[in-house]
Amino acid sequence: MSNGKLEELRGQLDSVNQQLLELLSERGRIAQQIGQEKEKQGVPKYDPVREKEMLDELVAQNKGPFDNETIRHLFKQMFQASLKLQQSDHVKHLLV
Amino acid sequence: MSNGKLEELRGQLDSVNQQLLELLSERGRIAQQIGQEKEKQGVPKYDPVREKEMLDELVAQNKGPFDNETIRHLFKQMFQASLKLQQSDHVKHLLV
Repeated sequence: MSNGKLEELRGQLDSVNQQLLELLSERGRIAQQIGQEKEKQGVPKYDPVREKEMLDELVAQNKGPFDNETIRHLFKQMFQASLKLQQSDHVKHLLV
Repeated sequence: MSNGKLEELRGQLDSVNQQLLELLSERGRIAQQIGQEKEKQGVPKYDPVREKEMLDELVAQNKGPFDNETIRHLFKQMFQASLKLQQSDHVKHLLV
């Protein structure tokens, strides 16, 4: 009975994990397009002002249960991964 | 003209950020319920076997653009944050 409840919650978690993966991947694809656009315009990829704005906006929208510090930490990791993606695209572009 | 393109992509990114925040928060709420259920059952919160299964499943579903190592890293951060949430709920519970 109790194990049924745990199984149900785990099923929900798996579904959310999958949706998170899809959204993260979509975020990665948009970041790649932004990287290409910045490349064309000769603008630096890393924009700390824009990053701060995004983090402030996310914290303003945060209703929990994660505290603001955790939200900042998790999104900073995603931003770093996106930047790495843009930079590796740049290297690939140079190698072509 | 080009700035319009960048603005459009940034708008898309903001929208995805917001959806990610909502999903992350939903994940946090489910993790809290799992923590309460485990508490009742006297089962440990941290389950490395289940965590490995979730990571393997995510990597199997990953179609890019992030590489598998990055997906593992990002999700591990989310898992750790969820575990911290369960543990702080436990402390609150003890203090009541």
